[in-house]
Amino acid sequence: MEELKYESVDLLIKNGILLTMDSQMRRFENGYVAVKDGQIVEIGSSSIGQIDSIRQIGSIEEKGSIWEKGNFTNSTMQATEVIDAKGGIIMPGLINSHTHASMTLFRGLADDLPLMEWLNNHIFPAEAKLTPERVYIGAKLACAEMVLSGTTCFCDMYLFEDKVAEAAYDCSMRAIVGEVLYDFPSPCYGPIEQGFEYVAAMMEKWKPNSLMKPNSLITVAVEPHSTYLCAPELLQRAVELARENQSPLIIHVAETLSECAKIKEKYGVTPTRFLADLGVLGPNLVACHSIHLTKEDMELYKAFDVKVAHCPESNMKLASGVALVPQMLKNGICVGLGTDGCASNNDLDLFLEMDTAAKLHKVFSMNPEALKAETALQMATINGARALGLDSITGSLEVGKRADIIIVNTSAPHMVPMYNPYSHLVYSATGNDVSVSIIDGKIVMKNRKLLTMDVESVMDEVQKIAADIM
Amino acid sequence: MEELKYESVDLLIKNGILLTMDSQMRRFENGYVAVKDGQIVEIGSSSIGQIDSIRQIGSIEEKGSIWEKGNFTNSTMQATEVIDAKGGIIMPGLINSHTHASMTLFRGLADDLPLMEWLNNHIFPAEAKLTPERVYIGAKLACAEMVLSGTTCFCDMYLFEDKVAEAAYDCSMRAIVGEVLYDFPSPCYGPIEQGFEYVAAMMEKWKPNSLMKPNSLITVAVEPHSTYLCAPELLQRAVELARENQSPLIIHVAETLSECAKIKEKYGVTPTRFLADLGVLGPNLVACHSIHLTKEDMELYKAFDVKVAHCPESNMKLASGVALVPQMLKNGICVGLGTDGCASNNDLDLFLEMDTAAKLHKVFSMNPEALKAETALQMATINGARALGLDSITGSLEVGKRADIIIVNTSAPHMVPMYNPYSHLVYSATGNDVSVSIIDGKIVMKNRKLLTMDVESVMDEVQKIAADIM
Repeated sequence: MEELKYESVDLLIKNGILLTMDSQMRRFENGYVAVKDGQIVEIGSSSIGQIDSIRQIGSIEEKGSIWEKGNFTNSTMQATEVIDAKGGIIMPGLINSHTHASMTLFRGLADDLPLMEWLNNHIFPAEAKLTPERVYIGAKLACAEMVLSGTTCFCDMYLFEDKVAEAAYDCSMRAIVGEVLYDFPSPCYGPIEQGFEYVAAMMEKWKPNSLMKPNSLITVAVEPHSTYLCAPELLQRAVELARENQSPLIIHVAETLSECAKIKEKYGVTPTRFLADLGVLGPNLVACHSIHLTKEDMELYKAFDVKVAHCPESNMKLASGVALVPQMLKNGICVGLGTDGCASNNDLDLFLEMDTAAKLHKVFSMNPEALKAETALQMATINGARALGLDSITGSLEVGKRADIIIVNTSAPHMVPMYNPYSHLVYSATGNDVSVSIIDGKIVMKNRKLLTMDVESVMDEVQKIAADIM
Repeated sequence: MEELKYESVDLLIKNGILLTMDSQMRRFENGYVAVKDGQIVEIGSSSIGQIDSIRQIGSIEEKGSIWEKGNFTNSTMQATEVIDAKGGIIMPGLINSHTHASMTLFRGLADDLPLMEWLNNHIFPAEAKLTPERVYIGAKLACAEMVLSGTTCFCDMYLFEDKVAEAAYDCSMRAIVGEVLYDFPSPCYGPIEQGFEYVAAMMEKWKPNSLMKPNSLITVAVEPHSTYLCAPELLQRAVELARENQSPLIIHVAETLSECAKIKEKYGVTPTRFLADLGVLGPNLVACHSIHLTKEDMELYKAFDVKVAHCPESNMKLASGVALVPQMLKNGICVGLGTDGCASNNDLDLFLEMDTAAKLHKVFSMNPEALKAETALQMATINGARALGLDSITGSLEVGKRADIIIVNTSAPHMVPMYNPYSHLVYSATGNDVSVSIIDGKIVMKNRKLLTMDVESVMDEVQKIAADIM
């Protein structure tokens, strides 16, 4: 008689198609996952393999159900809470590799405009009206939208970023946060010298052993804006700070042709070569967008294991261009998926982003095999985690990882029939099909209801802020 | 004291942002629309303009509410049913200009494959297992998905198409239907001679004065498949039949480069020139896809007022190419929006299609102004109606048109704040935000519940068919 490692768990999710998104892309029919202390302690199938006859004793109840395993008849698994996936898809929560969360405040404020007119006449004037409180509320709205659409972790860059961290923390979301750093004075910290102080203070406040962050949801990154808004000194200092603290380094790279022209004119090289010469490239660098890369740039990315956050919808909407993602993947470069901010998308739904990514690269390369559904899903899960340095704790369903889990409902007309769950997740589902979101073992959304915030009051607050911005 | 034209109406929708999508793109804050005998009899705003103080007397009830107009104090408007849009968007139902509805049966069956492998090894073998009954069930699932995502009218081409007509009729959907005609024997009608008989029988069955179709929901079109599957004789006979019956003529044109090469090799011209020489071009022709057009082709489209059904997501997924839609629109060519079939999309959600269209053409032309939100919305409403010859009865909210109306909920995190409803509809909404769908004055979906079919049993049937197809 074998012994069960865990006889009592906090949460048991059962009765779904379980996709692990691990390196073996395992799939369990009639799958289940057990969670204890926020960690995944068991995954499997109740109908195949070693643990093939899990069955429930007595009636199914949300709390206090007792499970028995056929191969372990002397042991029982007791779960404090049981969630029935009802035949839906159980999978890792999605990871949004690039956001400006509080820009939810500017959703739909200005669209369909040339980049400079959009920025100078609409976005910058609106951002001048930002306050820490407004950034907090905007970030909360973003968290609501992300949790409702199955995103459990995001990587953010913005102003007053400590407030984004607080919003994520208050909503129990996993996040990488970083104050945007640039040469000119910031509405948040003033001159850049104080910007580095602001970042250092955030790092202290949110460090793993701090009382405020017992569950390590928040990671502070160093986030210089770009090669065109940051002098070499700023960039090198950012690299240094990230190295000292083993932090991710986040930057926009080669988003537009005009940016590339500017750097060429100023430094005589591409943005990537410029960063390489400054010692910025490295495995902790997330190069957001990375649209206009030369062959040499891509070789540098590969050589330094630079990560990419690909934001196809924003790149399309701003007419920035199409990143060469299939080539990057072929070169072994790790590419995550991001939505960018709501002013240039205009939503935070990674299911839609996966669909767009898979389709855009097919037509752009005139090759229907260019980016498959499974690949798009990897970008939005395990590759995103790897890009952000979080793959030891999230991005896939594996024993020992933190429990960032979602359930996708499949009993809706647009999800029927079921031949292939990967296909449905990428080409048919939207974020609205997510029925449950779990972060770090905590149920943050169930049956489309947010459990960690009063979303009605957040929406009311945002509408008031918008009335003042408009 | 002015007289009210209608004192008693069947349906009153109130309390929303009303977008007419008519030629003036009128917008009414706190708007309402009144419906009698399936027709729109009044639209306006309860806070501005002539009829600025509509208010309800007594408690708000779904049935039997009495309304009073401030400027018409002696008159009251009595509505049998009142729907409160709760601040959402009241707009015309969307029009899907190109579908193969019953291909819902093959949703996710095979993806990410080269066109010929996909067709020959997956789609054709699956289609060999079709029966009239299966086509009916597949079309019902499509109707469910369309109604739930705000589409009130679709233009279909498929096998056993009379069953698609029956499905649409049974669900109270507006549809243009047409049996696909080609040179080789069809599983539906056998040799082409009988194909024309099948079409003639459908026309007789569904003609406006027939007892089966008192409300004119169904229009029968003539639908030769394409220049590469139809001989000149077939095409000319199709033109003749459409002319005799004043029917729409639907065909696939220039969808792939290989199609263009084939026609060039066989006839020495482009598909469009080939059709022009045969006398096929005309204002009743809906040329689906129309991706690979030369300058001369586009001039022919313009000269003959040919209509286009643009299907960006299918064209992307199959790596067919990008139609030159901004140039078409600049040339005054009428372009509607379609999803194509579920085997190459894989959904029927026109909200997602609008988003994709607006973004794809921006990046493809590297111009953020290439296709604006308002234009995408016109393509999915009034332009679709014009393309299908239905603009006198649907496609916009105007007095005298049939009541094809939807309400889009705006009180969800991804729809907040509200600066610009056009922007939100295209860039933030999905079909799931549609809370009410009304076709020909009949409420077919309310609060996400379908009222004209048992959708659970339809999904069960489809799953059974899929099990046999797989």
